[in-house]
Amino acid sequence: MLLVQKFGGSSVADAEKIKRVAGIIADNYCDGNDVVVVLSAQGDTTDDLLEKAAEINPNPSKRELDVLLSTGEQISVALMSMALEKMGMPVVSLTGWQVPVSTNFQHGNARIRSVSTERLRQELDRRRIVIVTGFQGISGTGEITTLGRGGSDTSAVAVAAALHADKCQIYTDVDGVYTADPRKVEGARRLDEITYDEMMELASLGAQVLHNRSVEMAKRYGVELEVLSSYERKPGTQVKEVVKNVEQMKISGIAKDHNVARIAVVGVKDEPGVAFKVFRSLANAKINVDIILQSIDRNGLNDISFTVAEDELDKAFEILKGRRDHIGYSDLFASKNVAKVSIVGAGMLSSSGIAATMFEALSDAKINIQMISTSEIKVSVLLDESCADKAVQVIHNKFFN
Amino acid sequence: MLLVQKFGGSSVADAEKIKRVAGIIADNYCDGNDVVVVLSAQGDTTDDLLEKAAEINPNPSKRELDVLLSTGEQISVALMSMALEKMGMPVVSLTGWQVPVSTNFQHGNARIRSVSTERLRQELDRRRIVIVTGFQGISGTGEITTLGRGGSDTSAVAVAAALHADKCQIYTDVDGVYTADPRKVEGARRLDEITYDEMMELASLGAQVLHNRSVEMAKRYGVELEVLSSYERKPGTQVKEVVKNVEQMKISGIAKDHNVARIAVVGVKDEPGVAFKVFRSLANAKINVDIILQSIDRNGLNDISFTVAEDELDKAFEILKGRRDHIGYSDLFASKNVAKVSIVGAGMLSSSGIAATMFEALSDAKINIQMISTSEIKVSVLLDESCADKAVQVIHNKFFN
Repeated sequence: MLLVQKFGGSSVADAEKIKRVAGIIADNYCDGNDVVVVLSAQGDTTDDLLEKAAEINPNPSKRELDVLLSTGEQISVALMSMALEKMGMPVVSLTGWQVPVSTNFQHGNARIRSVSTERLRQELDRRRIVIVTGFQGISGTGEITTLGRGGSDTSAVAVAAALHADKCQIYTDVDGVYTADPRKVEGARRLDEITYDEMMELASLGAQVLHNRSVEMAKRYGVELEVLSSYERKPGTQVKEVVKNVEQMKISGIAKDHNVARIAVVGVKDEPGVAFKVFRSLANAKINVDIILQSIDRNGLNDISFTVAEDELDKAFEILKGRRDHIGYSDLFASKNVAKVSIVGAGMLSSSGIAATMFEALSDAKINIQMISTSEIKVSVLLDESCADKAVQVIHNKFFN
Repeated sequence: MLLVQKFGGSSVADAEKIKRVAGIIADNYCDGNDVVVVLSAQGDTTDDLLEKAAEINPNPSKRELDVLLSTGEQISVALMSMALEKMGMPVVSLTGWQVPVSTNFQHGNARIRSVSTERLRQELDRRRIVIVTGFQGISGTGEITTLGRGGSDTSAVAVAAALHADKCQIYTDVDGVYTADPRKVEGARRLDEITYDEMMELASLGAQVLHNRSVEMAKRYGVELEVLSSYERKPGTQVKEVVKNVEQMKISGIAKDHNVARIAVVGVKDEPGVAFKVFRSLANAKINVDIILQSIDRNGLNDISFTVAEDELDKAFEILKGRRDHIGYSDLFASKNVAKVSIVGAGMLSSSGIAATMFEALSDAKINIQMISTSEIKVSVLLDESCADKAVQVIHNKFFN
């Protein structure tokens, strides 16, 4: 098998952890597999580098920031190669520009255009383990670029796609994808399998196992993903197009997102174009709006409520305040004391009553629902933040017990 | 003018120092010069990285060590660029592979083959300050290489040679080249000028201002060097082919080297081929031999004494011990309690009695000379280590007072 294995920053944070991960890699190699490893920067390296930069220039160019930050993964791959050399393994490290991983020009948030396989194949053909820097690439003019949040997951999937790898394994602190956060929800279960679509919904809903971009890319190129633990040697959760037991499971996970705030635009005219004015203003400022609720007021006036990421609330609020005359509303309210709880499951499509079961669980627990949003494989509700943990638990009990 | 300016690790050790150096660079740029800057890794970065490696593998491959160590200069150039951006300067950083600085394949001690000027010229034509990583390059197959000791000086000279720069300025902790170590020798004087040849002798004799390789390259390509202080803004010492006052000065400097040990091979036969056997054995092990003295013993037997670098003494001793029967000697002695003191001066060529003056100074001070070695511009003597400081001072007094 050709395996691409990705290890995150906490898995390579110090010499001991690097040696343990080297052991995993060596075992996979000695089982006869071809192995390409993708690594993030060690533990706090990126933060340390950002701090160094901030001391000198609080607002450096993104180009130079990429030159600085890309050293983090380069250190990781060199050290990992040395650990494998110590074990007598044939190994070679490659940076983003050595592979090369070609990206567009967007420093700090670059998109991968292609991964060249020539050098990778050459090294694999020599039966070498190849250790590649995650998170970084090279632009068309030879500049160092970085991929932004979740970049190393994306690097791993891109390498796996280019090489037509049999599997892309994402090693993390947990041993797979759970039906809910196992540290917080009693009875949370590890899933053996999950679909790309479900994983994407969970990822975008705050389950921090895999970054959305990487799952999206895996789906597009049919890369079979596995999320597994770098601490315990056992199978993890398979992420793929179709899973076996989708009918029985109905839902595959429950996620909670606290980075949510609610804005209410109260007393707008009930006429065409009002909602357009509100959301165009926000879209122009690149603010993403999530759940939207339009309710009919008395007196022919409407209220428009919607959610944004909490860290974008102030910006959104200021924009709407400035456009009061243009939009025409009587009041503007904002609240940060809300959270979003979502159930995700490909089984919803073919099974009625999933949403009703969720609402029943909340009703039984006397938890009030502020807003509802649904997609083909997801139901999200907005709740008072203080109820969120309880809500996840009662919904989990309802579906899994 | 096109200036290449090199700053060492201690000049960029922290945020404050980087900002001060950025000030020097900006001033030179604003005076209308084109400026290319070559930087070393910050202060202890290289040692920190070596320590990280040692924790994982005490004997890593040189290839991976180069991948690791080259991150040090990359961090420096990114931070320096950010400091200049903060001052509103147009600036761009380039790594060894971005320039590219092409080297041979000898990881850890690579030799520069060529410096491509296309990208450098492009950036200079846009009136940008270019900040280049010292110490590193890229091999013909795209591997990261490092240049070994003194590598950043060599990088700077190579860049200056390729661009036909008007001057290559090496900024250091001291304000130039002195007739002797100013921290230790009373009356030591700063030189306004020195020839390449003299500088090379001083460099190889332990004056740590400039690395030998860089001076050699500067001489070969006619790059005018200047050694100056990154703390005080004043002219330093010019290093060039011919200097004005060579006749008057007679000697330009006195250097002391403690990294010397003496080996005596006692009681070898007085016949052809014996010295060959001794020194071929050492040459095969890449051990450099410096001063050699052959003395005639009684009974038709000879003694061969010579010096090696102190850190190679054990290796050299073991080799000769193992070849006792082959060489045929009665005894083998080693001593680390020796030091080499040398006077250097292009003026020696045309001025007799320089060596005699040196010996006179030592004789007056009752310092015993163990061995003597001379070249066209140098006289070295081997002394008891405990006398070395005094020897430098009395010689300096003799020539400069």
